Amino acid sequence: MLTYACNMAFLNDHFLKLKAGYLFPEIARRVKAFCEANPQGARRLIRCGIGDVTEPLPPAAIAAMHRAVDEMAARESFHGYGPEQGYEWLRAAVAENDFRARGCEVADDEIFISDGTKCDTGNFLDVLGPRNRIAVSDPVYPVYVDTNVMAGHTGEPNEAGAYSKLAYLPCRPGNGFVPEPPKRHVDVIYICSPNNPTGAAANRAQLEAWVKYALEHKALILFDAAYEAYVTEPGLPHSIYEIPGARDCAIEFRSFSKNGGFTGVRCAFTVVPKSLQARTRAGEFKPLHPLWLRRMTTKFNGVSYIVQRGAEALYSAQGRRQVRALVEFYLGNAAVLRDGAAAAGLKIFGGINAPYIWVRPPRPLTSWQAFDKILNEANVVITPGSGFGAGGEGYFRISAFNSRANAREVARRLQELKW
Amino acid sequence: MLTYACNMAFLNDHFLKLKAGYLFPEIARRVKAFCEANPQGARRLIRCGIGDVTEPLPPAAIAAMHRAVDEMAARESFHGYGPEQGYEWLRAAVAENDFRARGCEVADDEIFISDGTKCDTGNFLDVLGPRNRIAVSDPVYPVYVDTNVMAGHTGEPNEAGAYSKLAYLPCRPGNGFVPEPPKRHVDVIYICSPNNPTGAAANRAQLEAWVKYALEHKALILFDAAYEAYVTEPGLPHSIYEIPGARDCAIEFRSFSKNGGFTGVRCAFTVVPKSLQARTRAGEFKPLHPLWLRRMTTKFNGVSYIVQRGAEALYSAQGRRQVRALVEFYLGNAAVLRDGAAAAGLKIFGGINAPYIWVRPPRPLTSWQAFDKILNEANVVITPGSGFGAGGEGYFRISAFNSRANAREVARRLQELKW
Repeated sequence: MLTYACNMAFLNDHFLKLKAGYLFPEIARRVKAFCEANPQGARRLIRCGIGDVTEPLPPAAIAAMHRAVDEMAARESFHGYGPEQGYEWLRAAVAENDFRARGCEVADDEIFISDGTKCDTGNFLDVLGPRNRIAVSDPVYPVYVDTNVMAGHTGEPNEAGAYSKLAYLPCRPGNGFVPEPPKRHVDVIYICSPNNPTGAAANRAQLEAWVKYALEHKALILFDAAYEAYVTEPGLPHSIYEIPGARDCAIEFRSFSKNGGFTGVRCAFTVVPKSLQARTRAGEFKPLHPLWLRRMTTKFNGVSYIVQRGAEALYSAQGRRQVRALVEFYLGNAAVLRDGAAAAGLKIFGGINAPYIWVRPPRPLTSWQAFDKILNEANVVITPGSGFGAGGEGYFRISAFNSRANAREVARRLQELKW
Repeated sequence: MLTYACNMAFLNDHFLKLKAGYLFPEIARRVKAFCEANPQGARRLIRCGIGDVTEPLPPAAIAAMHRAVDEMAARESFHGYGPEQGYEWLRAAVAENDFRARGCEVADDEIFISDGTKCDTGNFLDVLGPRNRIAVSDPVYPVYVDTNVMAGHTGEPNEAGAYSKLAYLPCRPGNGFVPEPPKRHVDVIYICSPNNPTGAAANRAQLEAWVKYALEHKALILFDAAYEAYVTEPGLPHSIYEIPGARDCAIEFRSFSKNGGFTGVRCAFTVVPKSLQARTRAGEFKPLHPLWLRRMTTKFNGVSYIVQRGAEALYSAQGRRQVRALVEFYLGNAAVLRDGAAAAGLKIFGGINAPYIWVRPPRPLTSWQAFDKILNEANVVITPGSGFGAGGEGYFRISAFNSRANAREVARRLQELKW
């Protein structure tokens, strides 16, 4: 036994670089402490923190899932293993409705159905090599950063939580919270538009600048459009593939979570154009599509048949109307919250093409100071912007996923606050 | 632009080592060619190839999923994001019924609910470092090998398809198709019991030998018990945790695919004991449980609420009876197929504690020769054993997932074959 005392299965050391999942546990801790100390405040507490939908599923999806469950109850209509990359009828509905109907060239077999955009953005790193220089925005959806840490693409974090080797691109009011392409070279860029947490949506010129950069640098854009349904201003792109050249430099992530309300049902998809290439260590160019197909068929077994039928129903005439109504309902909340926050003298961004409002208090406060003040005085839970990176410091995020009555009440309470 | 001509996002070169997914496409190609040339044979074709269930879901799961879909239709009972690692009620039902009721010490929070064992066996490599020496059986479920290739844990394959740096442990009639611990050191060992493809189930002495080896070598056992429900012989372990010491050296994968028939519904789970440790590069011992928890909360968003309610129902009194009946039905098919194959003079293994029968023709033939003969002369599709590795050459696998009528007909046709 002593012979082997120095041996033991190795763990992935990169995991040890990860900062503790600080944000939501810390919010929970402070909310709990507040509620214990203030039973009256606890009763009137309204949560606008986490970005989770609150309204029931569209009836078209409900009906389709009931039918699918019934199919599973009879031998003749039972479905076992499906194609790992998704059923053809769903891939076709997605490619046709979300892309070709908008003039974007996307083939059915470039659609990969999955159980979530969070999963896909992390899993896609499987097909990318370890030598890429990765760029993210600041503030940023933390999953992009943490999955790169796990994959060993970063060094250690500094005291502010920023990891070395990762390029952080600042988002400020001056650039509309959409980062400009950097001066130096990067290989992989995450762009989330409409953005979580800032609620900003990239315009055509901004996406064109990114596609130009990516083509010049032979870089790869990972375009996260999970909030695409909230794009309401005319002229704004709904897909990166509206930009010429994007098929040679971008993949796109989409989700049914925030349009069809599928956060608890779990369905999403990723578009990987067959024209997209990356290089081997030896410098040879190879398409990424076969690698992602191989990854999905080997490490995934497809999304539940019942769930895929539910997602398909969102593309029916009824389903589309119901999804539209759901999105408009949340955007209506966002408008109520924007108006309330503006009337309260807060500086507001987002909330027009996204279900998130990005807010700065009228006088400089840290994000956590603002959090505590709003919790204690308005009994409302928001998300501190600093939880999304150093670039979020001084801001906070209000989620529009709530009932209309709650949105109105939050708007009212914000106006009672004295800053 | 020229400045960057030598740059481009890097792909993961390890993917290029992968042999083409040869087995099932090649089966499909030969079956298609046969059917085109033999319309009459095509009409009487029976497929016993792929390991997919054929019978409808247990009524308890159907009823539970209908209820869950209805809950999603009303605001008061709607479920958005759930815990990434699974709902507490399902984790508790699993830990209690599958482990504590059998005398195995497993806590609720050591259960991680996922969408498939295939996914989990691959994803678990995320938390293991790149320096481990990996052992697999031969023949082997190809996913274990391919995911290690993708993760860079192997070298190139030789002509027979065996990858360098991977330790292949031979399964033969002499060891009951359960490999013995190797003489040399390995860090990570995959054990699949009951086995796909051989249908062999490890006995207590064999698992004790493996746990002893793992404890001595501080190695990690990845115990795949996806077919646990088929263990019928008394005295055989149902879980690695029936073996003292296993909590310090083993994780266990389980699935609802082959007991509740969830191959198209998608639900499984992995047990990660909190006592299990692995080492850092610096030689420090750390528990793996927090790393897997972090992996799951960061790269996964939980299994569909509807599906988890379906899985929970399999543990109800009715659900358990229905699952038992389903498993006994398939085991009944296996007995029919075993009897038929034995009467036909074939050498048979497995099929008693597993839904797979592992067969050798009465005279030496390659697996593909046997495949062609059975396809052409009996119009039955089986799986060539060589598709599972060099150790499977000369064997073929018959799946018992079928109707009883088909199982009887296959048994009859096997006896008509002249070898």
